[in-house]
Amino acid sequence: MYLENIKTSGDVKKLNIAELNALSKEIRELLIDTVSKNGGHLASNLGAVELTLAMHKVFDFPSDKVVFDVGHQCYVHKLLTGRQKDFLSLRKKDGLAGFPKIRESEFDFFNSGHSSNSLSVALGLKRGSLLKGEKNNVIAFIGDGSFGGGMVYEAINDISNDNLRDNIIIILNDNEMSISKNKSSISRYLEKLRLNSSYINVKDKLRESLSGIPVLERAAKGIKNIARKAVSGGEMFEGLGIKYYGPVDGHDLNELIRIFEGVKHINKPVLIHAVTKKGKGYPPAEANPEKFHGISPFDIKTGEVTGKKNDFSSVFGEALLKIAGSNDRVVAVTAAMPSGTGLCKFEKKYPERFFDVGICEEHGVSMCAGLALSGMIPVFAIYSSFLQRSYDQLITDICAMNLHAVFCIDRAGIVGADGETHQGIFDISYLNSIPGMTVLSPADFKELEAMLFYAVNEHKGPIAIRYPRGGEGASVLDCPPVEYKKSVLLKKGEALTIVAEGKMVNTALGVADRLLKLGKSSDVINIRFIKPLDTDKIKSSVAKTGRLLVIEEGLKSGGLGESILSALSGMKFEFIGKGICDTFVEHGEYGELIKLLGLDEESIFEEVKEVFGF
Amino acid sequence: MYLENIKTSGDVKKLNIAELNALSKEIRELLIDTVSKNGGHLASNLGAVELTLAMHKVFDFPSDKVVFDVGHQCYVHKLLTGRQKDFLSLRKKDGLAGFPKIRESEFDFFNSGHSSNSLSVALGLKRGSLLKGEKNNVIAFIGDGSFGGGMVYEAINDISNDNLRDNIIIILNDNEMSISKNKSSISRYLEKLRLNSSYINVKDKLRESLSGIPVLERAAKGIKNIARKAVSGGEMFEGLGIKYYGPVDGHDLNELIRIFEGVKHINKPVLIHAVTKKGKGYPPAEANPEKFHGISPFDIKTGEVTGKKNDFSSVFGEALLKIAGSNDRVVAVTAAMPSGTGLCKFEKKYPERFFDVGICEEHGVSMCAGLALSGMIPVFAIYSSFLQRSYDQLITDICAMNLHAVFCIDRAGIVGADGETHQGIFDISYLNSIPGMTVLSPADFKELEAMLFYAVNEHKGPIAIRYPRGGEGASVLDCPPVEYKKSVLLKKGEALTIVAEGKMVNTALGVADRLLKLGKSSDVINIRFIKPLDTDKIKSSVAKTGRLLVIEEGLKSGGLGESILSALSGMKFEFIGKGICDTFVEHGEYGELIKLLGLDEESIFEEVKEVFGF
Repeated sequence: MYLENIKTSGDVKKLNIAELNALSKEIRELLIDTVSKNGGHLASNLGAVELTLAMHKVFDFPSDKVVFDVGHQCYVHKLLTGRQKDFLSLRKKDGLAGFPKIRESEFDFFNSGHSSNSLSVALGLKRGSLLKGEKNNVIAFIGDGSFGGGMVYEAINDISNDNLRDNIIIILNDNEMSISKNKSSISRYLEKLRLNSSYINVKDKLRESLSGIPVLERAAKGIKNIARKAVSGGEMFEGLGIKYYGPVDGHDLNELIRIFEGVKHINKPVLIHAVTKKGKGYPPAEANPEKFHGISPFDIKTGEVTGKKNDFSSVFGEALLKIAGSNDRVVAVTAAMPSGTGLCKFEKKYPERFFDVGICEEHGVSMCAGLALSGMIPVFAIYSSFLQRSYDQLITDICAMNLHAVFCIDRAGIVGADGETHQGIFDISYLNSIPGMTVLSPADFKELEAMLFYAVNEHKGPIAIRYPRGGEGASVLDCPPVEYKKSVLLKKGEALTIVAEGKMVNTALGVADRLLKLGKSSDVINIRFIKPLDTDKIKSSVAKTGRLLVIEEGLKSGGLGESILSALSGMKFEFIGKGICDTFVEHGEYGELIKLLGLDEESIFEEVKEVFGF
Repeated sequence: MYLENIKTSGDVKKLNIAELNALSKEIRELLIDTVSKNGGHLASNLGAVELTLAMHKVFDFPSDKVVFDVGHQCYVHKLLTGRQKDFLSLRKKDGLAGFPKIRESEFDFFNSGHSSNSLSVALGLKRGSLLKGEKNNVIAFIGDGSFGGGMVYEAINDISNDNLRDNIIIILNDNEMSISKNKSSISRYLEKLRLNSSYINVKDKLRESLSGIPVLERAAKGIKNIARKAVSGGEMFEGLGIKYYGPVDGHDLNELIRIFEGVKHINKPVLIHAVTKKGKGYPPAEANPEKFHGISPFDIKTGEVTGKKNDFSSVFGEALLKIAGSNDRVVAVTAAMPSGTGLCKFEKKYPERFFDVGICEEHGVSMCAGLALSGMIPVFAIYSSFLQRSYDQLITDICAMNLHAVFCIDRAGIVGADGETHQGIFDISYLNSIPGMTVLSPADFKELEAMLFYAVNEHKGPIAIRYPRGGEGASVLDCPPVEYKKSVLLKKGEALTIVAEGKMVNTALGVADRLLKLGKSSDVINIRFIKPLDTDKIKSSVAKTGRLLVIEEGLKSGGLGESILSALSGMKFEFIGKGICDTFVEHGEYGELIKLLGLDEESIFEEVKEVFGF
């Protein structure tokens, strides 16, 4: 009833507190309904409803600006900025993205996706505004999980670098979680602030002291003189040059609006510490916020995910558990993703050999270097698009010392609805470039198990295994033991050599079947080792067929196809390289995106016929 | 006299304070003498003499372990651990490395090189020791500059994550500088600690209270009860779960040894804040520590660098100054390297448009994203091997939004004496992989100026210019205006197409001259744009010659050669790709290393003759 009248940010300003509270109910219902159908980030959006409403009530977007950290908590912001009627298209191809996108709205100021960079971006925006002589508020909206990432500290350090004489407003949405339960010192520090100061008392004191003073002045004064003193905390932030206000109840619109009014146009960097409940308003999400962080479509009544199947992550988790049982040097590392990467059982069974480093991928890789140097075998399970944050640490701290560390790269290839910042399309390129790195890609579950065993127990030196989101393909494949550099010939033929990696091996077999019906037989090679290459086998096949088709689920630049071309340079043959051509891949369903990229069986078959004249 | 009797770490233990002080004098003389001849990191080693001596006096290496952050301050450690007689080979090919190297000594525990990872590695080492049931001290030795990097904070966060019940000893060597003068909030916080507490007083109080108590207990007690209370600071570290001791005079051996004894075998993470003077004991370095941070060979009497010539960095600095004069949207960004990247004059002339973000490359790139979004044109001058720390931020924060930001990549290619962690050999590969990135490589100074003008004033979108350490080659090259994607044909021929980037264009011309004497003429193409490629020009040349030679100063995997092969796939031609083959490149002189890699004119000429049968 209220929601449908919010056509743009300014409409929020017209509502009073009672109306805003009613609006927050409507928003929660819509969030739960939509995410239950489309999947997405539910718990954090439910927790951020009042914070977002209060921002729109107080600040003047788009001349004021907000940078959402990670950006998964932007759904409420989208609903308040003219994107309500499209909301059911959330995360669908050509629909609304699950993250802020400049192309969608003048109210989105930055395409977020990865963690801990919002303060840096906000500082750049503010410096630009100052150079242009513009006066505005720049807000970084960040969760306590992201707040553990090192870039936040780098930015805080720089924010007070030149005594910034203007505001940056950091809203710390503290829901006592990162993606999984947060156990780090920063989270314990925040906890101390919460406990020391019972924010309900603060609120009472604020209320008491503020009667009779005009609102803006009141709030500023009240916060400065009372709340900050009442709160026996925040020295750490103050020590770093950031004024600290809090903690405040992040679901109390009255209080939030008052504090935001107080810091509006303040001329220094401030941090507002708001305490919220992840999943607020939907009992299953309140009870299990990690599950509802990013979730597939689910049943609203039960909270159960619909149609869940076995996936590479859980196969990895089970396989590692088994390996760790017979090798006590194996330790598991995750960056705030024990559930997403399949490590929950490991954590329970071997708590002393399990390390969750928080959303700190750089630190995670270098910590693995220390573990490896001490004789352990670290297995770091991490999503492809997040490991790219640790490119330098992989180079200098792992590979330059040829350390035996195992990187299990989940969500490699197209991930679907999370869009361009989450597609795992860079890993082949960046891993290929690192001397001494070995890169494996399993075509199915059985091969993942075999490769993990190989990587932990037989290999020496740095090694990565990339595997996709979700389940395996339909084909039943041969799985001989994994041997260094050795590929597997799955089919024999005369007219064409097909080399494929990972799940694309299924596609390769499908293309070969179709070609066979045209009377053209193919060698189908499951490459297994993307690096180093089984060059001899490829060479002898191509020498026979004179034609080569390479299929990979990743960027072509620096990818499998290019490295095979390089290895075969000097040979004469016809070539088709199928991969992703120098483009970012937006959100949509896996199958749709694969087709769009021309990586589906049908498209490849047609291209082969045309180019090779079959 | 003392130094020659130090054959290994244990020998340091035999000396008393007076002898250690005499030893420190000898060490300083040797440091100054050697670095004046070989170049290297002088100022920080002069500042770390007493800290290093005290460590070796107290701790039991190699069962205790120390991880040097960056590692440039390890010279004294090398002198104390059996590497004295080789010290004149410092930074020479096959000689001692300028950084810790496991292969050199059992007393080196980690191959350092890049910044801010020492706490992470130390934590991994400690966790490994605990799992193996070993009892030892693990030390992270870190400067205040590195201490501003975000990984430090990620590690501190994790160190107290699981209530580590064992020690990690962080020695913070605070010389009030990072590489250039540090102005960030963490450095101001450290300054406050120094000022608040006059560490001389602390020392006096310690001395007073400690008489009559056995040394170890005394020190521990003294520090705990007196120093820590006397020092009205350190709450920030304590808030993060790290016990803070300091500040202490980092040149007072007596005090250092006492404190180290006190924390030895302590069962919690501690930070010892030692204040030192960078360049201590060599007046020119004390007066100008940034100049003597990493320095080329110099005259000991005057402190002047011998034989300094014009280089790409200073040409860049002058060119940017000129461009900024007529375009007030241009802002310059550096990560603690204003001098190294040639930005000192810019900083003086346009202080409000100059941002030194500290040793925080990730933050620097995302801050540039904010600047670009606000309409500025950020020009981030950064070394190649350090920009690789920001690979993810380049992908998601810059290129996915197609922002106009200019990355001026200094020290691209072989850098020489700093060795494998500093070689700029990855940038072509990692930049090529990013959709929307444009990558330029100038062959000489004039071309760098033209490319910078193009990148700032004519290009839209993300763009990088890579250029090498040091000066240009001897050739005088044509320099037509820079046009998008357009290469320059420098010589015309029939038998061979040579494509080269950057300084390798000189090599290409040399090879072409030699071949001409054999009666074989070449097309020599200065590629200019590594990405996107001038495919048409290369294709038509190769169609004519049937032979292609590509020369690049970077890794072959994902490099220029591979991307040309990919663009020309389907064509039939003979090929030689010259670049660096999947290997780390150790320290040595530029010319030596280029020869070792087969990238010199002679080697390439011989290979061309042999492969192409000329």
